[in-house]
Amino acid sequence: MEIKIVYMTAGNMDEALRIAKVLVQRRLAACVNIIDGMRSVYEWEGTIQEEREVVIIAKTHADCLPELEEAVKSMHSYDCPCIVGVDVSGGNNAFLDWVREQVGPASLRTAD
Amino acid sequence: MEIKIVYMTAGNMDEALRIAKVLVQRRLAACVNIIDGMRSVYEWEGTIQEEREVVIIAKTHADCLPELEEAVKSMHSYDCPCIVGVDVSGGNNAFLDWVREQVGPASLRTAD
Amino acid sequence: MEIKIVYMTAGNMDEALRIAKVLVQRRLAACVNIIDGMRSVYEWEGTIQEEREVVIIAKTHADCLPELEEAVKSMHSYDCPCIVGVDVSGGNNAFLDWVREQVGPASLRTAD
Repeated sequence: MEIKIVYMTAGNMDEALRIAKVLVQRRLAACVNIIDGMRSVYEWEGTIQEEREVVIIAKTHADCLPELEEAVKSMHSYDCPCIVGVDVSGGNNAFLDWVREQVGPASLRTAD
Repeated sequence: MEIKIVYMTAGNMDEALRIAKVLVQRRLAACVNIIDGMRSVYEWEGTIQEEREVVIIAKTHADCLPELEEAVKSMHSYDCPCIVGVDVSGGNNAFLDWVREQVGPASLRTAD
Repeated sequence: MEIKIVYMTAGNMDEALRIAKVLVQRRLAACVNIIDGMRSVYEWEGTIQEEREVVIIAKTHADCLPELEEAVKSMHSYDCPCIVGVDVSGGNNAFLDWVREQVGPASLRTAD
């Protein structure tokens, strides 16, 4: 199927929107959904941390994942941001085709 | 495993609730989770768009996906709604069994 | 890849935070993301129910899933909580390595 949902988190809404717009402008994601007000629980240096974060869900093609990852890491305020891919299997084919048309690693796309 | 999470988006909460209730009534999804206040970023006719949307997450069986998709497309305000399936692998077997019992394409179910 | 996203729901924010902290303390999840204000639609005894719930998204290793499941079931207010695993495929390797380092079934870990 090669279409992927990429689940990420960001520190705040501004950062999430900035990342989302760059990914769509550079055609590394067809669309990006952002959910504010998430609470993240994790351990850091022996103590349990609880932070406010924002969820970012991008829809893209597997071929774009390496470039998407580099782009997010270059923009992100974290040293080691959560960027995890999940394979899509089934769904609205017209939507999946739209995702394919909207994205493509720069190397494959002729100048727009 | 054949159980699927189906990730969708809708224009607003009323639309999301209407879709969710029809899917559960027609036993095309065992349960549907709705998250309001999502921001969607995508490109349309050359400009980056930012819209408020609602996330819909349905839990169903792979056999129901075609019928679920048709039902959502017939109700949805978008021409090309986001409907993407993800395979479930592992989890609470009692819950996964409940999903199986709750859904089933109309063709397979005897009259309730 | 063996890293998993585990999607769960809880009755309220207190329950979700309690579950999240235990999972991280017992190193059954590297990090847990919680989204409040979710609306759940499902059928129960012939009528369509609509409830407020909370989404819990844990990131862990496949080996931890059985123990994570038992831990959540032992804490959860529901008889049959939604706990569904999804395979991660691709993403920020440094983050995926961090998940691996953060978790591990008690049996595999030497005393901390």
